[in-house]
Amino acid sequence: MARVVVDVMLKPEILDPQGQAVQRALPRLGYQGISDVRQGKRFELEVEGPVDEAVLARVREMAETFLANTVIENFTVRVEDAAEAASEPKAEGVAP
Amino acid sequence: MARVVVDVMLKPEILDPQGQAVQRALPRLGYQGISDVRQGKRFELEVEGPVDEAVLARVREMAETFLANTVIENFTVRVEDAAEAASEPKAEGVAP
Repeated sequence: MARVVVDVMLKPEILDPQGQAVQRALPRLGYQGISDVRQGKRFELEVEGPVDEAVLARVREMAETFLANTVIENFTVRVEDAAEAASEPKAEGVAP
Repeated sequence: MARVVVDVMLKPEILDPQGQAVQRALPRLGYQGISDVRQGKRFELEVEGPVDEAVLARVREMAETFLANTVIENFTVRVEDAAEAASEPKAEGVAP
């Protein structure tokens, strides 16, 4: 079992209203120094068996045809190594 | 200028209807071997100046109070190194 992560973001030239809304709110919440915010989607796919080039090619095809709208979005596909996947993100900084 | 990425995912114990919808559709589209799909949000923050521990702590605080709902979501914060950021994700596998 391996985890493949597909990140889907709007192309740079495409207006990102959600990202802009976040960026405009940050100074009001006291956070300075953030010049731009972009918001996108993250897919975590648990793949059965080893992830070889053929599997990655299939995931890219999946991303291109189904997970992303490549007219307005870019995507990246990467294998999350076991260490990353094992360190299941805890809500960082929140008392257990 | 540096890019800090905040990934926000539903906690494992929380039902993910969007991820399930994607997972159920994949076999119908001819993609086998994906045992689970989780969908979350990815924020790319362009930070002015160097990113030191203090800046990262501020971004964690931002994520905790504003970008994630830590009752149902986990988040991770990482600095995207210049190489990653420079390789602006092109729609992989799409003819230019």
